[in-house]
Amino acid sequence: MEKLNISEKLSLFSDHWNPRIVATLNGQHVKLVKFKGEFVWHRHDHEDELFYVLDGAFNMHFRDRIVHLDKGDMLVVPRGIEHRPVAEQEVSVMLFEPATTLNTGDAGGPLTKETLDTI
Amino acid sequence: MEKLNISEKLSLFSDHWNPRIVATLNGQHVKLVKFKGEFVWHRHDHEDELFYVLDGAFNMHFRDRIVHLDKGDMLVVPRGIEHRPVAEQEVSVMLFEPATTLNTGDAGGPLTKETLDTI
Repeated sequence: MEKLNISEKLSLFSDHWNPRIVATLNGQHVKLVKFKGEFVWHRHDHEDELFYVLDGAFNMHFRDRIVHLDKGDMLVVPRGIEHRPVAEQEVSVMLFEPATTLNTGDAGGPLTKETLDTI
Repeated sequence: MEKLNISEKLSLFSDHWNPRIVATLNGQHVKLVKFKGEFVWHRHDHEDELFYVLDGAFNMHFRDRIVHLDKGDMLVVPRGIEHRPVAEQEVSVMLFEPATTLNTGDAGGPLTKETLDTI
């Protein structure tokens, strides 16, 4: 039951597409992640996924549209919906999602992180 | 699947101790709330509760200590632990918790919000 500081946690890593767990509660994780470039198209069949932009901006691509997210914006991607985050510049994002959520969802591939560090 | 902006949502209300729901996912709610003054001692027997300070600062009182939270700080209060938020000045806080969570937990009383608005 220790407090944590989000800016401090963000300063602890610099790699992209590698979420870190910062809090666990009710079977959910709060994660921090930095995006830069294009991720893979994927979906999560059993998990809704929340994105909250802490710093920077990115585009969430859906099959039928693109949603631009700036600092302070939040988006919930419902389960089953294909999506792909694309960031021209580095962006820092907070994720809220079930502990079962795999970063690449159904897609797999080299960007998949089977286990995540807790920081 | 619309994005929302946290600052805009915070501008929509000014009362204290009255959480608003801004997102729902995986049986959980993301809520925004403004604190000022002293809340009641209470606990949630079945829900862990996350507090993330968006603006301002407050103290989370526990029976054996006080944790001071500034902007950017996050704290998870595990289920069953008595707590009481106290804010000398107004503070804006994001909550992440199960949809079943009642603001006053076991305590009840006049500050209880049986139903919350979604904004």
